[in-house]
Amino acid sequence: MNTLRVTVWNEYVHELESAKVAAVYPQGIHNCIRDFLLEEGHQVQTATLVQPEHGLSEEVLDSTDVLIWWGHKAHDKVADEVVERVWRHIVAGMGLIVLHSGHASKIFRKVCGTPTGFLRWREVGESEVLWVVEPGHPIAQGIDEKILIPHEEMYGERFNIPAPDELIFLGWFEGGEVFRSGCTFRRGRGKIFYFQPGHETFPIYFQKEIQQVIKNAVRWAAPLGEVKVGSEEGSFKPADPVMPIYGQEKDKE
Amino acid sequence: MNTLRVTVWNEYVHELESAKVAAVYPQGIHNCIRDFLLEEGHQVQTATLVQPEHGLSEEVLDSTDVLIWWGHKAHDKVADEVVERVWRHIVAGMGLIVLHSGHASKIFRKVCGTPTGFLRWREVGESEVLWVVEPGHPIAQGIDEKILIPHEEMYGERFNIPAPDELIFLGWFEGGEVFRSGCTFRRGRGKIFYFQPGHETFPIYFQKEIQQVIKNAVRWAAPLGEVKVGSEEGSFKPADPVMPIYGQEKDKE
Amino acid sequence: MNTLRVTVWNEYVHELESAKVAAVYPQGIHNCIRDFLLEEGHQVQTATLVQPEHGLSEEVLDSTDVLIWWGHKAHDKVADEVVERVWRHIVAGMGLIVLHSGHASKIFRKVCGTPTGFLRWREVGESEVLWVVEPGHPIAQGIDEKILIPHEEMYGERFNIPAPDELIFLGWFEGGEVFRSGCTFRRGRGKIFYFQPGHETFPIYFQKEIQQVIKNAVRWAAPLGEVKVGSEEGSFKPADPVMPIYGQEKDKE
Amino acid sequence: MNTLRVTVWNEYVHELESAKVAAVYPQGIHNCIRDFLLEEGHQVQTATLVQPEHGLSEEVLDSTDVLIWWGHKAHDKVADEVVERVWRHIVAGMGLIVLHSGHASKIFRKVCGTPTGFLRWREVGESEVLWVVEPGHPIAQGIDEKILIPHEEMYGERFNIPAPDELIFLGWFEGGEVFRSGCTFRRGRGKIFYFQPGHETFPIYFQKEIQQVIKNAVRWAAPLGEVKVGSEEGSFKPADPVMPIYGQEKDKE
Repeated sequence: MNTLRVTVWNEYVHELESAKVAAVYPQGIHNCIRDFLLEEGHQVQTATLVQPEHGLSEEVLDSTDVLIWWGHKAHDKVADEVVERVWRHIVAGMGLIVLHSGHASKIFRKVCGTPTGFLRWREVGESEVLWVVEPGHPIAQGIDEKILIPHEEMYGERFNIPAPDELIFLGWFEGGEVFRSGCTFRRGRGKIFYFQPGHETFPIYFQKEIQQVIKNAVRWAAPLGEVKVGSEEGSFKPADPVMPIYGQEKDKE
Repeated sequence: MNTLRVTVWNEYVHELESAKVAAVYPQGIHNCIRDFLLEEGHQVQTATLVQPEHGLSEEVLDSTDVLIWWGHKAHDKVADEVVERVWRHIVAGMGLIVLHSGHASKIFRKVCGTPTGFLRWREVGESEVLWVVEPGHPIAQGIDEKILIPHEEMYGERFNIPAPDELIFLGWFEGGEVFRSGCTFRRGRGKIFYFQPGHETFPIYFQKEIQQVIKNAVRWAAPLGEVKVGSEEGSFKPADPVMPIYGQEKDKE
Repeated sequence: MNTLRVTVWNEYVHELESAKVAAVYPQGIHNCIRDFLLEEGHQVQTATLVQPEHGLSEEVLDSTDVLIWWGHKAHDKVADEVVERVWRHIVAGMGLIVLHSGHASKIFRKVCGTPTGFLRWREVGESEVLWVVEPGHPIAQGIDEKILIPHEEMYGERFNIPAPDELIFLGWFEGGEVFRSGCTFRRGRGKIFYFQPGHETFPIYFQKEIQQVIKNAVRWAAPLGEVKVGSEEGSFKPADPVMPIYGQEKDKE
Repeated sequence: MNTLRVTVWNEYVHELESAKVAAVYPQGIHNCIRDFLLEEGHQVQTATLVQPEHGLSEEVLDSTDVLIWWGHKAHDKVADEVVERVWRHIVAGMGLIVLHSGHASKIFRKVCGTPTGFLRWREVGESEVLWVVEPGHPIAQGIDEKILIPHEEMYGERFNIPAPDELIFLGWFEGGEVFRSGCTFRRGRGKIFYFQPGHETFPIYFQKEIQQVIKNAVRWAAPLGEVKVGSEEGSFKPADPVMPIYGQEKDKE
């Protein structure tokens, strides 16, 4: 299988501020994700909030097939021009995988066009059952009918997203809620996957089935042809007719 | 049938700058649309770019069930805070009907999440045939299998929108192009209809079938319950469980 | 609001065979549903399996705007020609509401094109929470964010339906499952709503919120124009061109 | 790239009855399609109407990843049990590509659930322009913005299909019609692609871009995991709870 260029972005704040989170992800969530994607033979780089341009310069994005996004506390600290740059790469074909609390990130709100921060939530470490709704979808390959997650933050409906193009996973939570936990969206030439699991206080990204879904999603989201940023953003010159226009003659008749 | 509160927004620039356009729409496109919506018994007000806040204050939007948007030359002159305000009303339930060149407006780009300015276009007055794809849809009621438009600006695919929730009309153009000319999108509680016909140099909004589609769309897009702006934008407090969480006991076992 | 002609079809087998079911629905499920639809001012008739043509003659269907379907034990006893007749009325515009175990009925399998009998199930009377996913949809009007059902048969994913046109409700079950409990499908000019609640041993159709959803669905599913059975089934004569075909001349050039 | 097992089914009637068609496809449409799929390194077999079981025995289907279907005159001569068998393989994961007049075939009607024979048509050899609506989709890879087809039978809307899961191509016809010419549907685990081009009197399947689309569609439609026929058709035993059910205790409280 072919090698893809993956950039894992993590705001990397919780891990530095909380001993509890640091105990779960001592190298940061981004490096945990990088490690299991390296098993696939991909070229994986990481980027974080504190880097210049949040580590997402034009050059980095130019060499990125799929961008993974984890953020939570610092959504508002992500610069608007970086969000705009990421968006231009997405609509030109770069894949985007938004994880967990990334639901409220600027980039996900921008591609959705809705206030995606809106959902039910509760942080008591209840159990989740993640059900496969579309077993024939590439993102669900190798996954059994369900994934058990022993402890997770609850995310529940109503989740304020547009109707997704495809609904792949549904989440069940012990306290009575359900969630559209795995959803795809197409924007321009870019493919986007939102995946709910991954609260920072639980070792969810170390779970093999969760890793499998993210590995699948990376392959699914990769661009199929060359990515030409800006090529899909509107043209200022009119198009030549494909077929002759006989209208003037018709009007004369 | 019930009375709706409709606001027709028009940038109202072409009509003042071009004698050709003024000859077609002497009172402006907005007043042409207002007039035929009044036939339905609706309360209709108009708003234009030059008014303070472009005529779209919080008070005006609070008393608007459905907003109609026509813009072209001055998309960039629409203030970002007004776009944000309109968007907050849409996701809370206000309907939006975007006409013709409004495809590249800030508000339509925002709800779509794609560079919707991207499409083929050509202004030679060729003929269009508008086909009904979903005859069972409320927006197509009273419309025969097709609408003939003698002269129209060509809009052609690839139109860079997300896959619409529903595709109602397809346009055929004499020079060889096709277009997804009538599309619905749902964002939050709001319903959005994009409708392609209506170049400013042709009397298309005086055509009865086109008026019928817009009348239908107004009824379809109206909010069904009370519109509470801000109520769908995210919460800062956790949700109580609906069902008892026995997880801690389970862990002890 | 306008009066609709509703036919409630029930196989009416459980109620006659089981004292437990008869205790819940002494007049049969169909009459329970009829009673609350009469509150809406509709004209409601019922039909059952044992009647000639199962009570679904051409005449009955001709005077039906919306057909409601409850079946379970006797799916195979429904005659194929009646199923075909019902289907021809649906694609011509008659609405269909399929309830609970009707998921495995011949008519629902026919409109879906998949083996819709496939799902997880368990009958232990566990509780269900029904969440609203699309609060702006007509079928969800008047419903709060969720409906609690104290005891219900569990239906769980993977439910083998095509991706629905709209997903309105999601069900949560105590034993760990989730379900796409309220789904719409459009087939021809007809609108179809599948609604999961309603096991025969629990008084679920006496619950006010469940009645409200079914009332809403009846209004949503009603045909918008005249229903002409057979008019959408294919034509044997070619269509005249809408525009002149200059192709032969072009080929000569 | 991996080798797939493709079966090309052709009713193979026109080519034997009409000298005009035989001149275009001397070996039959099926062998034309087989030849260009062999270039991809696939294992390709053909099957036709006159063969026992129409060449589609359980054994043949068991060794088929993707089935291609061309039929027109003899839809009614295809045995219902063969249609049922093909359908069971599709919902279990076998891919299906339906070409041109196959729109009215029994198998396509069965997966769609609508009278898919219904469309406008005209056979005067007018030109078609096939536009790419979703350039980021795997089926559109390597295709420019459009494909020109010099002469084709016209197929026009309203085409009585359910709203497709994805709309990839739109067709423009000289006489004024448009058509949803490339559509995907998912049924069970199976992926289905309908592709409009290919009237028997024109050498359309010899056109390189048309071949490219079909090659792409074969790779897209291939099953991703093992195909277990019958595994998705409903179960007669209840599912064990995933999580403990405490309901009885709750009722006692």
